[in-house]
Amino acid sequence: MNNSSIAAALEQVRQAKPLVHNITNVVVTNFTANGLLALGASPVMAYAEQEVADMARIAGALVLNIGTLNETEIRAMKLAGQSANEHGVPVIFDPVGAGATAYRTATARGIMNEVKVAVLRGNAAEVAQVIGQDWQIKGVDAGEGGGSAADLAIAAARQLGTVVAVTGKDDIVSDGKATYVCRNGNAILTRVTGTGCLLTSVIGAFASVVNNPAEAAVAALVTYGVAAELAAAEAAAQGPGSFQIALLNKLAQVSGADIEKLGRVERL
Amino acid sequence: MNNSSIAAALEQVRQAKPLVHNITNVVVTNFTANGLLALGASPVMAYAEQEVADMARIAGALVLNIGTLNETEIRAMKLAGQSANEHGVPVIFDPVGAGATAYRTATARGIMNEVKVAVLRGNAAEVAQVIGQDWQIKGVDAGEGGGSAADLAIAAARQLGTVVAVTGKDDIVSDGKATYVCRNGNAILTRVTGTGCLLTSVIGAFASVVNNPAEAAVAALVTYGVAAELAAAEAAAQGPGSFQIALLNKLAQVSGADIEKLGRVERL
Amino acid sequence: MNNSSIAAALEQVRQAKPLVHNITNVVVTNFTANGLLALGASPVMAYAEQEVADMARIAGALVLNIGTLNETEIRAMKLAGQSANEHGVPVIFDPVGAGATAYRTATARGIMNEVKVAVLRGNAAEVAQVIGQDWQIKGVDAGEGGGSAADLAIAAARQLGTVVAVTGKDDIVSDGKATYVCRNGNAILTRVTGTGCLLTSVIGAFASVVNNPAEAAVAALVTYGVAAELAAAEAAAQGPGSFQIALLNKLAQVSGADIEKLGRVERL
Repeated sequence: MNNSSIAAALEQVRQAKPLVHNITNVVVTNFTANGLLALGASPVMAYAEQEVADMARIAGALVLNIGTLNETEIRAMKLAGQSANEHGVPVIFDPVGAGATAYRTATARGIMNEVKVAVLRGNAAEVAQVIGQDWQIKGVDAGEGGGSAADLAIAAARQLGTVVAVTGKDDIVSDGKATYVCRNGNAILTRVTGTGCLLTSVIGAFASVVNNPAEAAVAALVTYGVAAELAAAEAAAQGPGSFQIALLNKLAQVSGADIEKLGRVERL
Repeated sequence: MNNSSIAAALEQVRQAKPLVHNITNVVVTNFTANGLLALGASPVMAYAEQEVADMARIAGALVLNIGTLNETEIRAMKLAGQSANEHGVPVIFDPVGAGATAYRTATARGIMNEVKVAVLRGNAAEVAQVIGQDWQIKGVDAGEGGGSAADLAIAAARQLGTVVAVTGKDDIVSDGKATYVCRNGNAILTRVTGTGCLLTSVIGAFASVVNNPAEAAVAALVTYGVAAELAAAEAAAQGPGSFQIALLNKLAQVSGADIEKLGRVERL
Repeated sequence: MNNSSIAAALEQVRQAKPLVHNITNVVVTNFTANGLLALGASPVMAYAEQEVADMARIAGALVLNIGTLNETEIRAMKLAGQSANEHGVPVIFDPVGAGATAYRTATARGIMNEVKVAVLRGNAAEVAQVIGQDWQIKGVDAGEGGGSAADLAIAAARQLGTVVAVTGKDDIVSDGKATYVCRNGNAILTRVTGTGCLLTSVIGAFASVVNNPAEAAVAALVTYGVAAELAAAEAAAQGPGSFQIALLNKLAQVSGADIEKLGRVERL
């Protein structure tokens, strides 16, 4: 995956306008929907057990996010996930807050057990919790340097048999064999809620048009990171409120040429 | 309904500051509340079966929206709707995603059967699904030209015995006898989530002060469309994030003079 | 509490980055999380009965808000509140809409009975309902002058045995003995949804680092009011959409020097 193929994938998203079915938390629904719309995808949120299987089946990707989980929603996630699995729809999973409470950790592992996930996206602490490792994390971010985050991503990918994206200062994507580091983004992303959740949904948009899930994740991370850099250049000095709006603007405007110029991805 | 009477209705909304009770989806709650506040109405969201009848009774209008429906919320919608019916409070209904899943279609029809709805607002595909027609739609919009959307609105209004607003590139309002086409708005509305849902709630605000529901819908569509045009002129070039903020600004600022100058409504 | 000690408390919040656990309404979750992040705190929303006790225990403060209450959420609030009480975590309560329906009034009183609340924050009508007074309120605000709001705050603080913040044009904080009036803020706050709810969560952030709950409330009110004044000076003329974004920006930027210069608090 290089900048040219990422730019091509972005163009595919905009041509296909994939339906991305999100079962996500109440904090980020609006921002996620607006981010996907800005990028050129077509978001839908549908949570009822009576309809999630039907909606997941017709979607280009299914995104599961446990940020404000409850029993009803977990059942819906599993029903939707299994429907997606049956119909070849890629499932992207964001284990928000795994490790913060036992309930979240158990739920995250339960979803990984019952649904075939194409891409798991979390910060280092969350990913470590999903695979039951007492990984040494500084705060909730990946710590200094990309080394340990890469080791974690590779270990998780091998243990889980899926693509793992460990995001932080640098972002790592691994399928257990190929491993990429993506260096785009900006620190102000951490001052706006839901920027990680939206990123997970953006991975969904790319996974609906790029068959290889690791490449889809890399394309999403670089596109999102470049958009964030453009937004930060324009609005970070004004503050996180303005940055949030600028990020939506730049997701709509980020071009293949921007990615060719600014994308920073390498295979480890 | 002409521009002068629409301007007068807007002034009535701002004087009355009507309480608009919304039972709506989790994606758009914040945007809906802010849009209604900006316009000059007073939004409330209340969903519990224990209180919806009480809240609907004291409201100026009740808005039902099935964007993220579930069984509990459907029961609450029916309780609220029946309370509104008993107390003469107009009910506005937005059948979000009718047709996308069987559950949504059945729910939309169930609400139409059990609640007397003053105005049904949806895109052409949604309205066609509510009346059980296999209407030929290009995508989810009204298709080219106003002809077929007008036919649909008239047919739906007659079949359902209510006012129907079919929105798209042009917006049609019909009570089965009088039919209006409203030509305000801007395409960037489709790049921001919840602009249709907020529009439905704005119809609620107008229906609380304008007795004729078709005229209330026309006044809401034109006011909202003019505000969107003013917002687009200022912010569309910056992107959908900035447009969303500008739309809230313009809902607060749009004046009778703006409507006199820019409103584009005609009776068919 | 004077401007210097408020400035020092703000610095403590930014150093400590306290985890603020919110069980709040669906309208304001995103805005609340972004406001807390902007200020420098660390928000978490967690609602499931299976995890709220665990989350409240590790938080710096717990914020309960009944804006879109339901039976499940009320149970979760009580579980979280009791866990917070057991572990010395201050609980801040926002009785949104108490008085609007019997269900809200009863719920607000039930929470006050079953959870030891450190600070109750509401407008005059809400606070009066919580203590069962048929207080004469002009609209939902505190009425003209600070006199009656101060009497209400003092009466409520004594009856409930907690700190009470009655917010309106002026904001009153009383623990039944010491009573403060805070005169910062701007009327455009009433045109943006959730500005009161976010304020309640900001009180939580301060209560996690300031031991005296009345002083924490005063520090929060003044900081928030000064940020709102800075935001209004920059963006109120553009409209409520722009003000909302500017408020997030200013919560990130408001400094001790701003508070020294602009803070307006006096002890009655």
